[in-house]
Amino acid sequence: MTEVAHGLRNVVLTETRLSTIDGLAGKLVIAGFPVEEIAPHATHEEVIYLLWHNRLPTASELDSFRKSLIDNRYLPDITVTVLQAAAERKLPIMDALRMGVDTLSLVDTEPDDRSQEANLRRGARLLARFPTIVAAYWRMIHHQQPIEPNPRLYHAANFLYMIEGKEADAAAVRALETYLNTVIDHGMNNSTFTARVIASTRSDMVSAIVGAIGALKGPLHGGAPEPAMDMVFEIQDRAKKSGRRLEEEARDWVQARFRAKERIMGFGHRVYKTRDPRADVLAAAAEPLYEQTSNLQFYNDARIVESVILQELETYKPNANLKTNVEFYTALVLHGIGLDSKIFTSIFATSRVGGWIGHILEQYEEDELIRPSSGYSGEYNRKWTPLETRV
Amino acid sequence: MTEVAHGLRNVVLTETRLSTIDGLAGKLVIAGFPVEEIAPHATHEEVIYLLWHNRLPTASELDSFRKSLIDNRYLPDITVTVLQAAAERKLPIMDALRMGVDTLSLVDTEPDDRSQEANLRRGARLLARFPTIVAAYWRMIHHQQPIEPNPRLYHAANFLYMIEGKEADAAAVRALETYLNTVIDHGMNNSTFTARVIASTRSDMVSAIVGAIGALKGPLHGGAPEPAMDMVFEIQDRAKKSGRRLEEEARDWVQARFRAKERIMGFGHRVYKTRDPRADVLAAAAEPLYEQTSNLQFYNDARIVESVILQELETYKPNANLKTNVEFYTALVLHGIGLDSKIFTSIFATSRVGGWIGHILEQYEEDELIRPSSGYSGEYNRKWTPLETRV
Repeated sequence: MTEVAHGLRNVVLTETRLSTIDGLAGKLVIAGFPVEEIAPHATHEEVIYLLWHNRLPTASELDSFRKSLIDNRYLPDITVTVLQAAAERKLPIMDALRMGVDTLSLVDTEPDDRSQEANLRRGARLLARFPTIVAAYWRMIHHQQPIEPNPRLYHAANFLYMIEGKEADAAAVRALETYLNTVIDHGMNNSTFTARVIASTRSDMVSAIVGAIGALKGPLHGGAPEPAMDMVFEIQDRAKKSGRRLEEEARDWVQARFRAKERIMGFGHRVYKTRDPRADVLAAAAEPLYEQTSNLQFYNDARIVESVILQELETYKPNANLKTNVEFYTALVLHGIGLDSKIFTSIFATSRVGGWIGHILEQYEEDELIRPSSGYSGEYNRKWTPLETRV
Repeated sequence: MTEVAHGLRNVVLTETRLSTIDGLAGKLVIAGFPVEEIAPHATHEEVIYLLWHNRLPTASELDSFRKSLIDNRYLPDITVTVLQAAAERKLPIMDALRMGVDTLSLVDTEPDDRSQEANLRRGARLLARFPTIVAAYWRMIHHQQPIEPNPRLYHAANFLYMIEGKEADAAAVRALETYLNTVIDHGMNNSTFTARVIASTRSDMVSAIVGAIGALKGPLHGGAPEPAMDMVFEIQDRAKKSGRRLEEEARDWVQARFRAKERIMGFGHRVYKTRDPRADVLAAAAEPLYEQTSNLQFYNDARIVESVILQELETYKPNANLKTNVEFYTALVLHGIGLDSKIFTSIFATSRVGGWIGHILEQYEEDELIRPSSGYSGEYNRKWTPLETRV
């Protein structure tokens, strides 16, 4: 009997220089920087550059990288046509993103050059169009005209501009940059792994990224920040109706979930056995947004709900080590920016694509086919029987 | 130091009932049947049904499965539009296939039903459209009008009809069925693995299949039958020009490849240490095609080239165990049917999609996220430096 590595849980695929997680200590390192050292300070273009080049850019390198993104934001007509067809059918955003990105093979201006330099340029062209696809589709499904990219705005600011149709304030842009920087890479997660498995055949970057989008789409991977926000809304709403204190409503709500044996979204992570280090970075990014919008009440309510859930988890599931994870504060940051929860996963993808491309580049350099094997649970030596004789 | 499982070479992901390979003995079992027991006898629909249901269909089950395929062959307008855009840019067929299949989320008539029964229907709808996409695109890039599917013809016969514009003879259809049956599944190969990794997040079937197409596209995976055929043409051509015996030209050709340290396409496989069991099945399928077209000379020449290469490999690389693999006879079968070598990989995909869907169904039942981990080769504790200070 061979030993089966179910879910590849304890298998180390490769070494990467892109990120590392210490799940017991609750630490995340992104290309050499503790996440809290880099995410709140850098623009998103700097962190992408860091992942792809293993160092921060100089001023002139940053300038030319930004220019390459600005020059490649527009969508080809066929991409718009595909998004419109998807919008007519009200397809989920992640499907539309996958279908839209898939058409970008059509605007690969140097398809035969597979050098690392060409792949860096290819990565920039692909990444530049991600926010345009997400924003255009978001507007289409809300019966609004997509908005052309604004060449005066950088990556994050332009993204919000294309969603909202007006320039966002500096605090919102800063919070979005911090979010995009915080979740850009996270070890050998499923979508990153998918991108590497595809790239390991020497297939092209669009193929690898389309696969990764399809993986991130899955409910066991990228799909959880929406319910984290809905939970806060629901508990607030109950407290408002019952007139009881928020803490009491939160406690009842959690205990009802325990009884129903339901998972509580926003808490617990397969890798972290302590608080997800990204939670603090995002909490700090979220707070100023709510101060500014004089909606600090909502922020405080969310923190109360969080602390009640943590107490209850500690009391009733003390050995499960379920702490606040990135989803809870993702929801709080993106809600604070004014974004609808239905767009959250596609914004996650818009960040993670920077990490995927970094891993694809690394995989191309490693150049080893990823191919595990399988055991067999079926029969042997079955005999062919003609159709007429089968019953 | 953790041990790194480079390429996951010795890692067993899971147990499957779909197929198993004994690389040392040169045996391949497809859902309980030795490949040579099932592939030459069954229609392709029967083998697909076998993989998906773990038994051969009865006459009435086969009827209704065939009907579900016939009913779902047509392409949505948007798929045709995407293929036309790809054809204008002369994109490789595998890119066009990936882009076309990606749009099929638009015709998922029951997107919210994720039951195994719905996924079986979804699989049939997806698989039915694969040949239509390949054939339509093949004709578009040759400036020919795509041909509507013919509801009187079954899967393989209709595929050839849509490529050629006329009904193929029975021998060609039988050879294609045998080919499609022979390569439908092959253990945990890279594209099958990709499909399972994506499906393990509970993502949808289109996402998993689009990822698998992107993987199969890679030169280290699906891309080799073309050069195997070209090799035979080239050696024939040299013999014609020089007037020397084919054996001598073949021997010189192989030795020149050895000196240049180039791989000889069609020989050797990562898994098989002996003759690929699929080679014999395909050799038997190929021979009648050439007898029929009175081009038996070409078939005999190809066999002579094969035997010279095997002798030379035995003499000069006796320990490498390089035997004829599936690519060589894939080329011979598909060429015998009258197909151009540029369409070979997409026909491989048109077979393998049946296996992918079987594995996706199995993965959904297993329902375990596939997520390995990674080691870290980067730095720690880098300090943030503002842009102005970087040089």
